[in-house]
Amino acid sequence: MTGKIDARLRELGVTLGPGAAPAANYVPFVCTGPYIYISGQVSLRPEGQSYVGALGGTVSTEDGKQAARLCAVNALAALKTALNGDLDRVRRVIKVTGFVNATPGFTQHPEVVNGASDLFVALFGEVGKHARAAVGTSSLPRNAAVEIEVIFEVS
Amino acid sequence: MTGKIDARLRELGVTLGPGAAPAANYVPFVCTGPYIYISGQVSLRPEGQSYVGALGGTVSTEDGKQAARLCAVNALAALKTALNGDLDRVRRVIKVTGFVNATPGFTQHPEVVNGASDLFVALFGEVGKHARAAVGTSSLPRNAAVEIEVIFEVS
Amino acid sequence: MTGKIDARLRELGVTLGPGAAPAANYVPFVCTGPYIYISGQVSLRPEGQSYVGALGGTVSTEDGKQAARLCAVNALAALKTALNGDLDRVRRVIKVTGFVNATPGFTQHPEVVNGASDLFVALFGEVGKHARAAVGTSSLPRNAAVEIEVIFEVS
Repeated sequence: MTGKIDARLRELGVTLGPGAAPAANYVPFVCTGPYIYISGQVSLRPEGQSYVGALGGTVSTEDGKQAARLCAVNALAALKTALNGDLDRVRRVIKVTGFVNATPGFTQHPEVVNGASDLFVALFGEVGKHARAAVGTSSLPRNAAVEIEVIFEVS
Repeated sequence: MTGKIDARLRELGVTLGPGAAPAANYVPFVCTGPYIYISGQVSLRPEGQSYVGALGGTVSTEDGKQAARLCAVNALAALKTALNGDLDRVRRVIKVTGFVNATPGFTQHPEVVNGASDLFVALFGEVGKHARAAVGTSSLPRNAAVEIEVIFEVS
Repeated sequence: MTGKIDARLRELGVTLGPGAAPAANYVPFVCTGPYIYISGQVSLRPEGQSYVGALGGTVSTEDGKQAARLCAVNALAALKTALNGDLDRVRRVIKVTGFVNATPGFTQHPEVVNGASDLFVALFGEVGKHARAAVGTSSLPRNAAVEIEVIFEVS
């Protein structure tokens, strides 16, 4: 790890895993032109802390925020693979969609998805600022608390 | 306001606000190549009428349609900022995703999201016709009735 | 039907319908640059088998998988229209978003959405492998069990 963004990851105390294997017949990312579409990343980790359950139910907003951050870390792991390790090629975080496993009436989706947004901005600075949607879902794969998908622009 | 689309907005009786400030650490739009990604816009207005609650619950389909129209107005306000005021640069409304705060069993998402689609077509004519998805969500930020995200192509 | 992909469709026993008319004021697809955005396709068919209801409720995971496959077939019908019949122009399936009508606590969204992913990979081979997100929705238009949206890259 020798790049500028890799150094920033170390400062932020973030360790990227090898990237989760897709749970099904698809791939972790697709590159097209200057864009990389990252598959939906859930708040689970093969080893270590996972976040499961519904916001407004058993999961607090603060834990939801950590769950969204974990999704972003998983997205960065997939991105790093897509870029053959060179995260310095990121030109922009274009779009983040945050799907929050949430009960009816839950309202703090923005606070939850900030866990992902804050990491991207801390890591990439101005070009880390992205368009975003945050919504509630009735359920998520493997009962994950949060799922995040991202589109990046790269050089 | 001197452009052709501005004139059409006046004919339709639509006044664009200054654009809602994002509720979190992201931006209202991202421009990349000829595309503008608009962040998810909810059916709330800083001043005036807001639409909150669930379709199939306390919100009627007709009110839901008005909620979707308000989301579209908010998206147009963000778009206008992105274009430094010149809405005549719009070449196509590419994609609208309509997230409807809805109870289980609700079925009229298309009728609701039409509130946004109809405005785009009334405003931009043939190039206002877009690809679209409409789905139900268990909940939305700030209990909004509808959230809309849009991708535009511009010159 | 004379193309390579048409032949593969026949081998797979898939017949494309004329494409569902949108239920509202939008269009089945939008072409922009090398990209085609297909509108959300639900698991309904004008004639024949439709899949309605919620996963985790009245719809089994196996039926949900068939529902997702039907959505993919409907998406291919729209794509074929967009390409004036020539499916051999597909260069990549970029992104699939699978919205699964699901009860709280349902966890098998990946298995359900595989019904669409498996068909794309069987049909297009390596370039059929796509980025994907799969999430639960509280409800879907016309009570469909599944809704799928797709972005294709074409030549």
